[in-house]
Amino acid sequence: MACLLQAFRSLSAGIVLSVLWGVALGDKVLVVPQEGSHWLSMKDIVELLSHRGHEVVVLVPEVNLLLKESQFYTRKVYRVPYDQEELQTRFLSFGNQHFAERWYLTAALTEYRNNMIVVDMFFVNCQSLLKDSATLSFLRESKFDVVFTDPALPCGVILAEYLGLPSVYLFRGFPCSLEHAFSRSPSPVSYVPRCYTQFSERMTFSQRVANFLVSYLENFLFYCLYSKYEDLASNLLKREVHLPTLYQKGSIWLLRYDFVFEYPRPVLPSMVFIGGCNCKKLGVLSQEFDAYVNASGEHGVVVFSLGSMVSEIPEKKAMEIADALGKIPQTVLWRYTGTPPSNLAKNTILVKWLPQNDLLGHPKTRAFITHSGSHGIYEGICNGVPMVMLPLFGDQMDNAKRMESRGAGVTLNVLEMTSEDLANALKTVINDKSYKENIMRLSSLHKDRPIEPLDLAVFWVEFVMRHKGAPHLRPAAHDLTWYQYHSLDVIGFLLAIVLGVAFIVYKCCAFGYRKCCGKKGRVKKAQKSKAH
Amino acid sequence: MACLLQAFRSLSAGIVLSVLWGVALGDKVLVVPQEGSHWLSMKDIVELLSHRGHEVVVLVPEVNLLLKESQFYTRKVYRVPYDQEELQTRFLSFGNQHFAERWYLTAALTEYRNNMIVVDMFFVNCQSLLKDSATLSFLRESKFDVVFTDPALPCGVILAEYLGLPSVYLFRGFPCSLEHAFSRSPSPVSYVPRCYTQFSERMTFSQRVANFLVSYLENFLFYCLYSKYEDLASNLLKREVHLPTLYQKGSIWLLRYDFVFEYPRPVLPSMVFIGGCNCKKLGVLSQEFDAYVNASGEHGVVVFSLGSMVSEIPEKKAMEIADALGKIPQTVLWRYTGTPPSNLAKNTILVKWLPQNDLLGHPKTRAFITHSGSHGIYEGICNGVPMVMLPLFGDQMDNAKRMESRGAGVTLNVLEMTSEDLANALKTVINDKSYKENIMRLSSLHKDRPIEPLDLAVFWVEFVMRHKGAPHLRPAAHDLTWYQYHSLDVIGFLLAIVLGVAFIVYKCCAFGYRKCCGKKGRVKKAQKSKAH
Repeated sequence: MACLLQAFRSLSAGIVLSVLWGVALGDKVLVVPQEGSHWLSMKDIVELLSHRGHEVVVLVPEVNLLLKESQFYTRKVYRVPYDQEELQTRFLSFGNQHFAERWYLTAALTEYRNNMIVVDMFFVNCQSLLKDSATLSFLRESKFDVVFTDPALPCGVILAEYLGLPSVYLFRGFPCSLEHAFSRSPSPVSYVPRCYTQFSERMTFSQRVANFLVSYLENFLFYCLYSKYEDLASNLLKREVHLPTLYQKGSIWLLRYDFVFEYPRPVLPSMVFIGGCNCKKLGVLSQEFDAYVNASGEHGVVVFSLGSMVSEIPEKKAMEIADALGKIPQTVLWRYTGTPPSNLAKNTILVKWLPQNDLLGHPKTRAFITHSGSHGIYEGICNGVPMVMLPLFGDQMDNAKRMESRGAGVTLNVLEMTSEDLANALKTVINDKSYKENIMRLSSLHKDRPIEPLDLAVFWVEFVMRHKGAPHLRPAAHDLTWYQYHSLDVIGFLLAIVLGVAFIVYKCCAFGYRKCCGKKGRVKKAQKSKAH
Repeated sequence: MACLLQAFRSLSAGIVLSVLWGVALGDKVLVVPQEGSHWLSMKDIVELLSHRGHEVVVLVPEVNLLLKESQFYTRKVYRVPYDQEELQTRFLSFGNQHFAERWYLTAALTEYRNNMIVVDMFFVNCQSLLKDSATLSFLRESKFDVVFTDPALPCGVILAEYLGLPSVYLFRGFPCSLEHAFSRSPSPVSYVPRCYTQFSERMTFSQRVANFLVSYLENFLFYCLYSKYEDLASNLLKREVHLPTLYQKGSIWLLRYDFVFEYPRPVLPSMVFIGGCNCKKLGVLSQEFDAYVNASGEHGVVVFSLGSMVSEIPEKKAMEIADALGKIPQTVLWRYTGTPPSNLAKNTILVKWLPQNDLLGHPKTRAFITHSGSHGIYEGICNGVPMVMLPLFGDQMDNAKRMESRGAGVTLNVLEMTSEDLANALKTVINDKSYKENIMRLSSLHKDRPIEPLDLAVFWVEFVMRHKGAPHLRPAAHDLTWYQYHSLDVIGFLLAIVLGVAFIVYKCCAFGYRKCCGKKGRVKKAQKSKAH
């Protein structure tokens, strides 16, 4: 019944889109995506834009992981100085590194280095693109109406400036607080936990101290990630570039936020919340998966995936996990492309790909083992499935903390957990009813919205095209220096006045005192001297 | 064509409401309104709630101005210790006071006193209600699902706490920044102009100094307005009450904001923007008004109203205005209930009431003379009519400044303006095409929205009823003390550590210096002494 209602709502929203806003006029959208899992929700929006009659061109490096051909868009491919083998090697190494032991004190540095395995490759992509005069010339001549980009790395932001086009950003909040730091959206350190801290919105005093200190490290992270791009941009635009100023030119931030998942915090009017836009309408399971689910009997199934970027893991860990999965009565559908663990139990089925959202939406699904990437978490919320979370990198630890703090799942440290831990966690989220109740409550709040997030995303991209931006949503904060923004010049001026007045009053009093008492004092002193 | 499109859009939105959200289940809504113009947009929402099948009870003082009977809601009337005559006298006096000369230095105090003429009466209403045991007993027994209230004055906020019900607020931002101050929504003084300053979002240094100082006066204003209510609440709830804490329990702030009118600024996720919800679908003009408009010829008409609370003005000022109106070729439709000015020109028609939004939506309407109350301004924006603004009290001066800064109208000081000034202002906004172009640009931005504001308002009231609140939108800021919120304890702690470490380092260095150089120094000194 719930599924039918959801399908009906989505269908209705689709109708609404055309009834309310009319048929689109075939504008030209330039999409500058972010390779990897970020592309998954952007792809859904791009497909709907195409469906609405817009001409969509996606800028794609010739060597890539997920940016494949599609009937919904034209790919404009640019050359990069590495081959498919290096890409595969880097992603495999990136995945495996997250299962290597790390020393507590250097964990942050190790995490940074692991991420740089792929982030460096993305920089090479951007460098190649911005030096590819033929592609740049094509982009200039194509007369696009908007740049739709993922601003996690700033290639699209720079291109929008180069082409003089308004832009729409699609973002989730990683790297840390970028959307707030660069857009000057206040982010009080007292109740907005910084990323990698795994704090909840309710922090102890010591956590608030740590959060305060970490907030200053964010600037350092931005410097490490983006200073090279500033040089790229300066070369292309032939002037000195301050990257946050470029980011501030984005018209709309489509944020994959929903406050059943995020902690409530201040935002700006140019921020539009489309969390859950990746939970597409429930389809029908293929014969293969339908058979698996039906054969699971009363115990149902557990869905297991570590996301689009990690599909195989070191053998030892795989065997530990396989052992745990064998201890539960449910059938486990595990997306895994590596060598099958030798101890794989009969209840565990390895598949190279699985229809994650459709499986999660099946009433026989009892739990979801996930790396807690934001896409997976939203699919878990949409479908009301309790989770066992094995966060690996990036925002995943914080995501897991959020869901755990809401009683909707259990988090395990993938490096330290034993086979027993995983089996117990699974039994807990399946058998302890509170997990199901909590995730169902979050699900009902999340799905109760005036408009579907995917439709909202498309509306705002079209809005920016219709009005050539959204300047009425741009806060005047962007025109202030940092000290003006914090009113430091005003406070300094008022302090100077107060101190000046205090000084004058003091001098006047001192002068008056000398005039009145000083003479007496001198007279008394003189009299005393005479007496001696 | 534009009108047809607008009508079609509204109709579609109405259909959407039922298609997307289903038919409402007949929940019970308790409405605690604010007498005066605030009621106008609340009434529209209440009517739609009733239309959706909810049982709506509106709490009404037996003596009132606009809170009349309706087929859409039941009125629960409570007794008040004054009569209709006193009400009329107070409103007349309130209106007239705004036309009295005031001294620059005491203008703020005079404005405060003028407002208190009616605000004091509203306090008496609340006092009477909260002491009316029969009415309170009725409210307790009625088992409402939500309190829908205007929180400009806190009677509804207190009642929601007393009845233990979730609440939804409808608000526009007056008294000054209440919605931000009480909900801990950051309000940077460097680019968010405070009310009564008439500053735009781009302030000079001296304006920023003034804005900084005025921001501290807001707390004083809140104290003057609300301290009496705190006592009322304490008596009713039988415990000490901190009013901002009560306000923070509101689930949703429905804000009559739109950023073509407001300056963009930080907001909270529990704030929903429904600016323009009072611009109801365009109807058909009655025969009387249709005849006036058609007879106006090529010059068209000018619509003139000073709002629902000021329908007559002192004779001298009325004559000045009548003189000005006679100098333009347009027909002027003036809502005026006082004695007709003796110099009224032939082109000016006095009416006791006018269908403002429908008249503004007529293609023959050339300009709108308004007191720049927020309702009128939104109707001007919706219909794209340039304005001549004669602000009188409250937020009207700031509203006028906003529209003027966007080139959509001209502001006049109603006390100082001459007949010539008014005539010239009218000629300017009618003949200088830039005013029409600017207001049409604002209009197109304002009306380009994914969902109609009235529907959005109803959605959120129903949401709060369905989920018994919206706790997932409540920021953890509400659980912090003021010094924790600003991280002052953290900063103090870190400063203490830094100073402690610096002190220890200094002492160690000093000790080391004495040990190393001190001995040498003493040796040298000793040698020197011996040499002598």
